[in-house]
Amino acid sequence: MGKGGAKMDYTYAPGRNHLFVPGPVNIPDQVLRAMNRNNEDYRSPAVPALTKVLLEDVKKIFKTTSGTPFLIPTTGTGAWESALTNTLSPGDRIVSFVIGQFSLLWVDQQQRLGFNVDVVESEWGAGANLEVLASKLAADTAHTIKAVCIVHNETATGVTNNLASVRKILDNYQHPALFLVDGVSSICALDFRMDEWGVDVALTGSQKALSLPTGMGIVCASPKALEASQTAKSVRVFFDWKDYLKFYKMGTYWPYTPSIQLLYGLKAALDLIFEEGLDNVIARHNRLGTATRLAVEAWGLKNCTQKEEWFSDTVTAVVVPPYIDSAEVVRRGWKRYNLSLGLGLNKVAGKVFRIGHLGHVNDLQLLGCLAGVEMVLKDVGYPVKLGSGVAAACAYLQNNIPMIPSRI
Amino acid sequence: MGKGGAKMDYTYAPGRNHLFVPGPVNIPDQVLRAMNRNNEDYRSPAVPALTKVLLEDVKKIFKTTSGTPFLIPTTGTGAWESALTNTLSPGDRIVSFVIGQFSLLWVDQQQRLGFNVDVVESEWGAGANLEVLASKLAADTAHTIKAVCIVHNETATGVTNNLASVRKILDNYQHPALFLVDGVSSICALDFRMDEWGVDVALTGSQKALSLPTGMGIVCASPKALEASQTAKSVRVFFDWKDYLKFYKMGTYWPYTPSIQLLYGLKAALDLIFEEGLDNVIARHNRLGTATRLAVEAWGLKNCTQKEEWFSDTVTAVVVPPYIDSAEVVRRGWKRYNLSLGLGLNKVAGKVFRIGHLGHVNDLQLLGCLAGVEMVLKDVGYPVKLGSGVAAACAYLQNNIPMIPSRI
Amino acid sequence: MGKGGAKMDYTYAPGRNHLFVPGPVNIPDQVLRAMNRNNEDYRSPAVPALTKVLLEDVKKIFKTTSGTPFLIPTTGTGAWESALTNTLSPGDRIVSFVIGQFSLLWVDQQQRLGFNVDVVESEWGAGANLEVLASKLAADTAHTIKAVCIVHNETATGVTNNLASVRKILDNYQHPALFLVDGVSSICALDFRMDEWGVDVALTGSQKALSLPTGMGIVCASPKALEASQTAKSVRVFFDWKDYLKFYKMGTYWPYTPSIQLLYGLKAALDLIFEEGLDNVIARHNRLGTATRLAVEAWGLKNCTQKEEWFSDTVTAVVVPPYIDSAEVVRRGWKRYNLSLGLGLNKVAGKVFRIGHLGHVNDLQLLGCLAGVEMVLKDVGYPVKLGSGVAAACAYLQNNIPMIPSRI
Amino acid sequence: MGKGGAKMDYTYAPGRNHLFVPGPVNIPDQVLRAMNRNNEDYRSPAVPALTKVLLEDVKKIFKTTSGTPFLIPTTGTGAWESALTNTLSPGDRIVSFVIGQFSLLWVDQQQRLGFNVDVVESEWGAGANLEVLASKLAADTAHTIKAVCIVHNETATGVTNNLASVRKILDNYQHPALFLVDGVSSICALDFRMDEWGVDVALTGSQKALSLPTGMGIVCASPKALEASQTAKSVRVFFDWKDYLKFYKMGTYWPYTPSIQLLYGLKAALDLIFEEGLDNVIARHNRLGTATRLAVEAWGLKNCTQKEEWFSDTVTAVVVPPYIDSAEVVRRGWKRYNLSLGLGLNKVAGKVFRIGHLGHVNDLQLLGCLAGVEMVLKDVGYPVKLGSGVAAACAYLQNNIPMIPSRI
Repeated sequence: MGKGGAKMDYTYAPGRNHLFVPGPVNIPDQVLRAMNRNNEDYRSPAVPALTKVLLEDVKKIFKTTSGTPFLIPTTGTGAWESALTNTLSPGDRIVSFVIGQFSLLWVDQQQRLGFNVDVVESEWGAGANLEVLASKLAADTAHTIKAVCIVHNETATGVTNNLASVRKILDNYQHPALFLVDGVSSICALDFRMDEWGVDVALTGSQKALSLPTGMGIVCASPKALEASQTAKSVRVFFDWKDYLKFYKMGTYWPYTPSIQLLYGLKAALDLIFEEGLDNVIARHNRLGTATRLAVEAWGLKNCTQKEEWFSDTVTAVVVPPYIDSAEVVRRGWKRYNLSLGLGLNKVAGKVFRIGHLGHVNDLQLLGCLAGVEMVLKDVGYPVKLGSGVAAACAYLQNNIPMIPSRI
Repeated sequence: MGKGGAKMDYTYAPGRNHLFVPGPVNIPDQVLRAMNRNNEDYRSPAVPALTKVLLEDVKKIFKTTSGTPFLIPTTGTGAWESALTNTLSPGDRIVSFVIGQFSLLWVDQQQRLGFNVDVVESEWGAGANLEVLASKLAADTAHTIKAVCIVHNETATGVTNNLASVRKILDNYQHPALFLVDGVSSICALDFRMDEWGVDVALTGSQKALSLPTGMGIVCASPKALEASQTAKSVRVFFDWKDYLKFYKMGTYWPYTPSIQLLYGLKAALDLIFEEGLDNVIARHNRLGTATRLAVEAWGLKNCTQKEEWFSDTVTAVVVPPYIDSAEVVRRGWKRYNLSLGLGLNKVAGKVFRIGHLGHVNDLQLLGCLAGVEMVLKDVGYPVKLGSGVAAACAYLQNNIPMIPSRI
Repeated sequence: MGKGGAKMDYTYAPGRNHLFVPGPVNIPDQVLRAMNRNNEDYRSPAVPALTKVLLEDVKKIFKTTSGTPFLIPTTGTGAWESALTNTLSPGDRIVSFVIGQFSLLWVDQQQRLGFNVDVVESEWGAGANLEVLASKLAADTAHTIKAVCIVHNETATGVTNNLASVRKILDNYQHPALFLVDGVSSICALDFRMDEWGVDVALTGSQKALSLPTGMGIVCASPKALEASQTAKSVRVFFDWKDYLKFYKMGTYWPYTPSIQLLYGLKAALDLIFEEGLDNVIARHNRLGTATRLAVEAWGLKNCTQKEEWFSDTVTAVVVPPYIDSAEVVRRGWKRYNLSLGLGLNKVAGKVFRIGHLGHVNDLQLLGCLAGVEMVLKDVGYPVKLGSGVAAACAYLQNNIPMIPSRI
Repeated sequence: MGKGGAKMDYTYAPGRNHLFVPGPVNIPDQVLRAMNRNNEDYRSPAVPALTKVLLEDVKKIFKTTSGTPFLIPTTGTGAWESALTNTLSPGDRIVSFVIGQFSLLWVDQQQRLGFNVDVVESEWGAGANLEVLASKLAADTAHTIKAVCIVHNETATGVTNNLASVRKILDNYQHPALFLVDGVSSICALDFRMDEWGVDVALTGSQKALSLPTGMGIVCASPKALEASQTAKSVRVFFDWKDYLKFYKMGTYWPYTPSIQLLYGLKAALDLIFEEGLDNVIARHNRLGTATRLAVEAWGLKNCTQKEEWFSDTVTAVVVPPYIDSAEVVRRGWKRYNLSLGLGLNKVAGKVFRIGHLGHVNDLQLLGCLAGVEMVLKDVGYPVKLGSGVAAACAYLQNNIPMIPSRI
């Protein structure tokens, strides 16, 4: 007798953790319920039937009808690897942008996988330099560039790149390069249009805007990407689309064991998104992103994102004054207020902290977070006017269209 | 295929509901986990072993060593009935106070159960009139008064009565009346001392400060109450302590089937309380109650509670101006912001709304609620300065001792 | 760190407990999932909307269109008390049958509630003596008998009474007595027809064939019973239907706080029953009851139920030879095989053990239980031929119509 | 309103599915409870603290003190890839055994990853041909063989290889080849001794004997394997140990996002194993394996495993007579009895069906499964004597030492 479940937690804190890192994000109770289940035989008739529905449904969040999705038991890092190794061969020239820690890590992966990466760097806080892309494509009449790789939303700096522009540039030069997109912190939260923008591979992770646990990398391939995969020479087995496609054809769908729980969880997560309406979900993210930016402004702090056109509706990186260590903001948030904020990473370590506002989250949860940030800022010596950010956010939210259309 | 769990909810709203009614309250995830289980045979060795531990542990929240607890599958209303029918006989004279809707309902029950209720009324917003009690006891030299019944905390008005004074008055007149206390919205949240204050029966419900689902009425009887139960003539079977005591003696504990889930849930809930420390839990409630009252003041609104001595740390009833319908505040909170507030009841219907701040809840959750209240107030036409209440609450909370001792 | 959830169990045993007591029974995973949720404000629009659906749906399991159901936060014992106190007055003459421990307990309650109980006893193992009932009704031309109280299925002996016959007898004598039925271990498992049989109050508990946790007593009252409740003088408050009816009329439904979890659980449980089909559910119970009886016969043991007409499809009480203590069978089942069987109670203590085969259970679960019983019987010295009971049950089950119509 | 959770299941069947495929296996309720939780920030102090404990604890199931474990968000297939690519370079010669479908798939992966695979084939049903291994090692005085790859337990045929012998042979020839072991269906269920047997990389998957959901590949590397990883030239990023080791050193442990739920689940799963005792767990698997084999014998059917020395205690492949299609056995099991059995794969498709008896499972669950198999066999026209297998299994289990030491 006697040992309770409570002690499994590292250090107890009353009430609910305010989880405002930009992933993993809050899981809706409906999804937790759907996942609260025993394993099942994935070769029974039930799991393929469920998978079939999921593969159709998941295409909607990519806004594609021609794409082929893969639900891979991996993380975003694995999804990256799947996108690259299935479409490219070692030595292939690719253009890739470094605008923050996550695009940097993807470039690192691209290099380690043996590609010839033509890196375009921006200041951290700026978007991808599309002018450089344009000039590279213009110069590449021999079509040595096999792919353009870009993160839709750089999670480290809160910068959203303009993918429609990338497509326009590719089209301008009638360049056949594959267009590979990391949509990890964008898909299901920001406006993303695979077919319209001619994206060849798009990918996300279950623990981001889909609001699931970590463990499913969702990769969607255009017909052109699928074709490329037939000749791509990168070594791959676990991440090989070919094995999936073989089992798709047989109607059993799985080359190896999937997580039964994540499949049912994905069904519940998609059902929630479709019930709210994908465009309403995207509008809600804009609502929360805007409210957050107004709060940052009211605090007299700078947004790490340098221009409005790059503002991210899923994560806001807040620049602290030089006399403050942003890591201390994060530490205190957790210790004193049970608030989880994102650290500044690499070049912006100590300089920014991040507020993730993506996934299944609402106005009052965000306002609780913002109030917490204000107290932490005061704790660490920044002369914030308490209530100022919350007031600015409230003024916007209260004047805005309702968040819950179903309840009007 | 296809029907998801999501649709079971009446109307979908993204994110987490801010549950700030004064019960049922937020259930900690640890408790949800502990309750997520199949039924068990309650006659196996496991359930009595668990029950034995629970009966010892639960005494700590009453601060009693001599009391005998009963874990009855019922609600607070049933717990009331158990307290009364086991200790009193039809026609018995009892003194009882009406200070709000819940004390009123208890008096109604007392009358319907056939007692001769000597009702002492106060204005709603005031505490029990203990001077009247004193004069009644003084006059009752024949000891016709068999019991004094009082709610520790009136949930409808946010008024906490002074139980130590009640005991002092009883002692002053050396009056043998039983001292029966409704601790539904106090025990585990407010300072309550069964033994020290000579309380004869105290009771609470699982869905209040214990932060469990509804369904367990917890009644604790002093030796004097147990003795009274041997001669009390009120008709009772389901609520009869005698059946429990018989099974206690046999070591099988249950005269009828208990909820296995609530037993494990109670274990987890008590473990959390003991881990935080009961006195820390009580201090946290004072912290949140104070913050709420400061917000109300900053909004320029009146607390329904008339004097500071009666301020409740578990619920605050906020008086709205005459031109506003408080029910509309509650309706809008739910519809626009997924915020659940308490309605004004009976005499104060339309005039007050209530913020419950009890159970497993923390600073940021409360601040999210307060921000929501501000927006609703503005929605309904009250000229609140947005951010004002949150600022006042933050100023207090940020200056105060930390909420999470374990993380320091 | 380090304390795991596992230790909350009294004594660890690998694998799943085979729960074959006649209640509380196995909870379907779908129901566990539906109940795995936070509290909600029961005064929000969502809970009344859910309740309204439940009150309609629950009538189907009683096979009534004219009845009024009450979902009371209590157990079967409380449901009994609700049925009696709302329809009868102290001193009222009622005819009641004692045929085993649960009917005995109900009679005990009836006597303690102050009714004049005309007890008709049968040997334990026999059904209610309806001839005696007939003669009593025949003699009662003055209609002094106000109610006939009968358990549909006596859980202690596995005896099912013939309710259609009771109605026929009442009709024969045109006797206006109320017809009160304990359907605790029958409703949702045995054929029960409230309207057709003219039952005035029928009741069950959530933890029986509905396969929920304990905590909801479901009572259904005919129009005649509701009428009786207006003049019944038994003292009642918690169990008073009047308070429910008042809130039904207001559309808020609840006179006091319900268990949010049990409401959602009930919805899921009813959905499962309707998906399988109530008549298929009843047929499945007959299938499992028959299989169990064939196994008992193959073991060379006696069924406590004396005649086939009384055989129960929800519980089988197995008589052990005099040289064996049936309590030891139950103890060993739990200790050695993680098997939960029902004890013999009162008069049949030590003489019978019980196999509950009700609720959400299937062929293979039952066969695992039967195999376990065989091993236990051998353990305690009964010369059972291992495999004999399982073989007899299998022969029946395998030849029978499929259990899972949806999968054919 | 109205859509219930039930409909999420493909086709409803009452009662609990008997899950007897050799993975994914039944998840203990304690583990389900531990996993029933929201996401957390994996960069907070809590998750590294938990991870640190897990990395120590998990070494115990490998019986290693010198190994370094990696908890990779992947499946067994990914764990294979991690083991190979971190220790070997393209073109490296490895000896690998094909004895069934899973060893075949591993060899296929080895070839596709560019190794020079020296395949040693056995008949399906036989173990790895260690004589051939001996002769190859004897001949390889130049040490061109870089690794010996072997499955401990071939899940397709129920064959357990003798790893101690492999080590002995390697030692006999003082051969420095790495010793890589697939322990997917053995570790935590069969006797496995990483340090004693000088295994260099051992791996398993969460959904096997650990009884978790799919999604965590657990790989454990000896110091020699770690050293090899520093020069191995296989391309790898997601599976690269180097990234893990870098974060181990920093104390933050995760190069990318782990599944919070699987971490807490692993803690609970290990706690259960340690509470039962790892050796008791292994003994229980032998108990259940033996019982299953006795049943197969009683049915007059052949075990696919050709010799007793290779009998597997985690899965039994049962050979059906030529006139029966084993796939029909599996189909009927699921459709008529809600029983999940394993299909025959590849060479033994249609010829064998498989009973998985690994993970958190007990006697009565197995007996329910065996009874189900008997009925299915009769359904498909095999003249089994009903009850015969159950009787043989019971006779063994009942005579054996108790399964539940904690309850004696």
